[in-house]
Amino acid sequence: MANLRIGVVGCGRIGKLHIDNLMGAVPGVEVIAVADPMIDKSGARDWCAARGITNVSADYMDVINNKDVDAVFVCSSTDTHSVISLAAVNAGKHVFCEKPVDYDVDKIKAVMAAVEEKGVKFQVGFNRRFDHNHKAVADAVKSGKIGDPHIVIVSSRDPEPPPASYVAVSGGIFYDMMIHDFDMVRYVTGSEAVEISAVGSCLVNPKLQEESGIPDVDTAVVTMKMANGCIAVINNSRQAVYGYDQRVEVFGSKGMASDGNDLLNTATIMTVDGAHSEKPLWFFLERYNQAFIEQVKYFVDSVVNDKPVVVGAIDGLRPVYMAQAATESCRNGGVYVKVPQ
Amino acid sequence: MANLRIGVVGCGRIGKLHIDNLMGAVPGVEVIAVADPMIDKSGARDWCAARGITNVSADYMDVINNKDVDAVFVCSSTDTHSVISLAAVNAGKHVFCEKPVDYDVDKIKAVMAAVEEKGVKFQVGFNRRFDHNHKAVADAVKSGKIGDPHIVIVSSRDPEPPPASYVAVSGGIFYDMMIHDFDMVRYVTGSEAVEISAVGSCLVNPKLQEESGIPDVDTAVVTMKMANGCIAVINNSRQAVYGYDQRVEVFGSKGMASDGNDLLNTATIMTVDGAHSEKPLWFFLERYNQAFIEQVKYFVDSVVNDKPVVVGAIDGLRPVYMAQAATESCRNGGVYVKVPQ
Amino acid sequence: MANLRIGVVGCGRIGKLHIDNLMGAVPGVEVIAVADPMIDKSGARDWCAARGITNVSADYMDVINNKDVDAVFVCSSTDTHSVISLAAVNAGKHVFCEKPVDYDVDKIKAVMAAVEEKGVKFQVGFNRRFDHNHKAVADAVKSGKIGDPHIVIVSSRDPEPPPASYVAVSGGIFYDMMIHDFDMVRYVTGSEAVEISAVGSCLVNPKLQEESGIPDVDTAVVTMKMANGCIAVINNSRQAVYGYDQRVEVFGSKGMASDGNDLLNTATIMTVDGAHSEKPLWFFLERYNQAFIEQVKYFVDSVVNDKPVVVGAIDGLRPVYMAQAATESCRNGGVYVKVPQ
Amino acid sequence: MANLRIGVVGCGRIGKLHIDNLMGAVPGVEVIAVADPMIDKSGARDWCAARGITNVSADYMDVINNKDVDAVFVCSSTDTHSVISLAAVNAGKHVFCEKPVDYDVDKIKAVMAAVEEKGVKFQVGFNRRFDHNHKAVADAVKSGKIGDPHIVIVSSRDPEPPPASYVAVSGGIFYDMMIHDFDMVRYVTGSEAVEISAVGSCLVNPKLQEESGIPDVDTAVVTMKMANGCIAVINNSRQAVYGYDQRVEVFGSKGMASDGNDLLNTATIMTVDGAHSEKPLWFFLERYNQAFIEQVKYFVDSVVNDKPVVVGAIDGLRPVYMAQAATESCRNGGVYVKVPQ
Repeated sequence: MANLRIGVVGCGRIGKLHIDNLMGAVPGVEVIAVADPMIDKSGARDWCAARGITNVSADYMDVINNKDVDAVFVCSSTDTHSVISLAAVNAGKHVFCEKPVDYDVDKIKAVMAAVEEKGVKFQVGFNRRFDHNHKAVADAVKSGKIGDPHIVIVSSRDPEPPPASYVAVSGGIFYDMMIHDFDMVRYVTGSEAVEISAVGSCLVNPKLQEESGIPDVDTAVVTMKMANGCIAVINNSRQAVYGYDQRVEVFGSKGMASDGNDLLNTATIMTVDGAHSEKPLWFFLERYNQAFIEQVKYFVDSVVNDKPVVVGAIDGLRPVYMAQAATESCRNGGVYVKVPQ
Repeated sequence: MANLRIGVVGCGRIGKLHIDNLMGAVPGVEVIAVADPMIDKSGARDWCAARGITNVSADYMDVINNKDVDAVFVCSSTDTHSVISLAAVNAGKHVFCEKPVDYDVDKIKAVMAAVEEKGVKFQVGFNRRFDHNHKAVADAVKSGKIGDPHIVIVSSRDPEPPPASYVAVSGGIFYDMMIHDFDMVRYVTGSEAVEISAVGSCLVNPKLQEESGIPDVDTAVVTMKMANGCIAVINNSRQAVYGYDQRVEVFGSKGMASDGNDLLNTATIMTVDGAHSEKPLWFFLERYNQAFIEQVKYFVDSVVNDKPVVVGAIDGLRPVYMAQAATESCRNGGVYVKVPQ
Repeated sequence: MANLRIGVVGCGRIGKLHIDNLMGAVPGVEVIAVADPMIDKSGARDWCAARGITNVSADYMDVINNKDVDAVFVCSSTDTHSVISLAAVNAGKHVFCEKPVDYDVDKIKAVMAAVEEKGVKFQVGFNRRFDHNHKAVADAVKSGKIGDPHIVIVSSRDPEPPPASYVAVSGGIFYDMMIHDFDMVRYVTGSEAVEISAVGSCLVNPKLQEESGIPDVDTAVVTMKMANGCIAVINNSRQAVYGYDQRVEVFGSKGMASDGNDLLNTATIMTVDGAHSEKPLWFFLERYNQAFIEQVKYFVDSVVNDKPVVVGAIDGLRPVYMAQAATESCRNGGVYVKVPQ
Repeated sequence: MANLRIGVVGCGRIGKLHIDNLMGAVPGVEVIAVADPMIDKSGARDWCAARGITNVSADYMDVINNKDVDAVFVCSSTDTHSVISLAAVNAGKHVFCEKPVDYDVDKIKAVMAAVEEKGVKFQVGFNRRFDHNHKAVADAVKSGKIGDPHIVIVSSRDPEPPPASYVAVSGGIFYDMMIHDFDMVRYVTGSEAVEISAVGSCLVNPKLQEESGIPDVDTAVVTMKMANGCIAVINNSRQAVYGYDQRVEVFGSKGMASDGNDLLNTATIMTVDGAHSEKPLWFFLERYNQAFIEQVKYFVDSVVNDKPVVVGAIDGLRPVYMAQAATESCRNGGVYVKVPQ
């Protein structure tokens, strides 16, 4: 008997990932309903059937109105996250919502208000907080081992750039990619950004702006003054040819906590030419595979045992403010822009 | 529609591990039948039912005689491996057999003869060959990158010792634990042991021999002269308090290939006291989790696409010869003992 | 018979370091004269005598006017570097000048003009370029192995802060400490900074400004737009409690080159509490010991074999422009400031 | 004024190394006399003169009989170590003797007896005990951090083999090369070898025995039962193409202490082909440069402050017993041979 019955809205790549994790790696849950507008055209109906999920629909309201559903996973396209979340919350469902909740601050606030009113659990899918490496860094900071944080450096680079057509609707690198890193800075420092300066270039694809039709960049560095005095730096590139580069360093008054990438393997070949060892895991599906599972276990625990969620709606709002400030700064020569508090 | 329908004999810890892996991580297979003498008392029937496997039995012949079963996984107690394997092979089934096939050389040879006669696939569960780290070392040697192997060092240490009662029926450290490392030496060198010297002590538990009733040791070092001239060393301890220590180093005429452990995470905390980082993964279920899956994918590929198995019955025989020689040497002051070829 | 006879001006800590290196580790040179205004009060006369150097004086002109002196090492107090360098160059001597040449751009330009006119060799003591680790990173970039540089991160942290009284006359962190890192960015990118933004705080010593009487900071992050499109970040702290932290990372279109610190030793202690390993070498005398020697070997080679110096007077000028821009930016909220070209 | 006036016998490579270290890196000593049978033919007279050492001779008795000499460094050819040491000790001089004291046990014992009788300090040049890495491992064991040692693995490989003509007079790999590693095992375990088994092959140079005229090997593995129950393994190769490979691992009841090589630099180049980093330092002059100095500082401290030497004559004797046993074992199929106590 499952402790939690789950309905999933959106059965694309990320929805399928969550369904497989929920079924294979998260104890005490059952996936009882799935909705996707392309449920038939995309083959998602068959994909679900092969997993014994037969309650499928093209209409997400079928999931939300399903009385047996305790919690809804919002895995639909980004522009529908807040609408579906709001509907689910208003129907009294607990919600796990993929990031971002929305890029529109007012829509996130509407979700936050509904969550408050309905008293349901609402968790945002900032999965990196659950990565074994980053979590160990954050835990070290929280424990006081490195004292007060003075400097934070987040290096976050994708292995290959998305197509310009994707960039065109992505909101730009600060919303689409760095949003995770804004969250990471908040996570490891336990503090909020006060002012943000951003600088960027199109070094991976010099024709990016022309091809995407938006004034975006593919290489960016952001500097932030945090409320606790700490200075944080994020660097992003859309293309690290050696694979997904995801590292965090927190330097403080008593020491430093930092992590490295997970590698394909630990073997070293040493010859007259020197030592050769492996690259990082290729991309987020490999690197954050276990983190995707861990975050859901936390969500389930929050709902079943009525605990506070570890990444709430406010954590969906703050990075959007930061992306706004960074975008504005980047388009204005790197001037420091205040972040709404 | 599954390409391969599998029956599993033995539904204890390792049988369950294989069933979960087959269902969750190996495409193209179906587990259609399970047998275990304790199927009811152990709760295995319910465990299987929860996974949709209802064709269960206390009699392994029900699996072997099942016409829909293409391949049998032998996951029963060690003393029954060869009998059940032989029955399955004689029934024309492909077999994946957990290690060891047997400690009795004649019984392994009987299985080998039957496999030969029936033309079925037979793979032994030396999972460590499929570990990402060890495989990278073996591949480097095979590729010629380090030239001819001259010295091999296998360090293999368990995190905690088994109870003396287990040791009593284990056949001793050379059969029970070092058997994997004998296979590893053959794997990474591509050569056979000619002579073996073993030395050991009861350093973890000085009362081991008294408590177990057998002249066993818990700390052992074995040296081997290989057919290709290479000298191989294996060191075993029943207790590495810091976790499962599994490392291989191959030194050759053109260089060295070696690996390290997988760690809990990559974080480092640096303070006035120095740098602190993590321990290895705790034990084989954590470290070789993916290797368990990989080996089965290879087995399935061998059967479905009629390829040679990568770890055959002969690979079950050789390490037993080596364990015999090591046991004899250890009980005779470390004298070199010839290994039957 | 020495190929090069050297006179040293300034016999404090850094002068003594150079004299010992010249005598013990640099072949083909002889130290024949030393001057220091405190030659008697400081005990420098005896210190020199113990090394067989008896031609000592309180007046640096005695060194400069010495006809047997081929090259002058300017190791005096910072405020006298340019004056003494100018005198030495005008006397036709080759000069090795400790950094900085001066903080006044016009004085550096005067030295540059004299060097040009006299045709002598003039090298600035940016020793870090000769560190085995940083040099390997720079060489990798130059070789094209990592393609075009996109992002540079220089982490440079001292183990302990200087007294406020020193800070008071230091010119501030950007002149006194980051000047080395400005040089490092130029060195590893082969490009010039176009615009610089700086942000800083007093996190190590909140009373720093009060105690030093200057608007300085002890924790600083600088971001630079380079002429080649690359974005560079430098982070400085006056106090890394775990030791001298000196690392460089260059990320480019074809990969990444980065280095780590040299550690006290390579030993690792692994217990149930995890792995413990060592800290970086304590400070610049330990870390850059060999680099101090290497730079002088290059200087000697330049003079003896009439080759171009590897770190010329222009390399003394550029970082001062950068420090100027950073100081201005830091005092104006982090606005980007153009760097004179 | 020097605390210790030193005479050096033997002015070849190792004698010169010691002289330069004594003059440049060891405070409180003076080198006042040098003897070498080839003092004129080899150019050693001039080499000394350039360092201000004019009291040179072809007869080592001139050093020993020099009343101003407090301590004698025996750096002559191996076959003269014990004779010259004995003469120096009998003359009441403190002695620092390069390893080995002798290969003849009786001659070492004669030196030991004289040292005892005369009450002088006598140190053997097992420099590796003073290496920063190995010392950290030994210190960790001594401190009890890893509990009782159970398994020791010493990997010791030279970058290139000596000529066969050298091997012909070397005494063989166990005396000439592994003698250092025998000392290392004693050093890190604090225990004595009881029985030794050795196995070896000519894998680097298959014609070694023919060319050298002695039954030597170039690849060897030795296993030892130690008095404290610990099992120790040493592996030697005359040729590690990637450089000097010097590593020690001590595994014990509470953990493991191990070290790695010192590398040329810490830089890593990461590309699509993986990560590339550096090789170990090339050979003993590079790797043990500082250890050569450290051991002499300890010797000087012993003499000047009348402390026990840290590596005494007994430490010169024990490894010879071990080399004897290993040689005998290797020539007898690897049988365990008892080590005289």
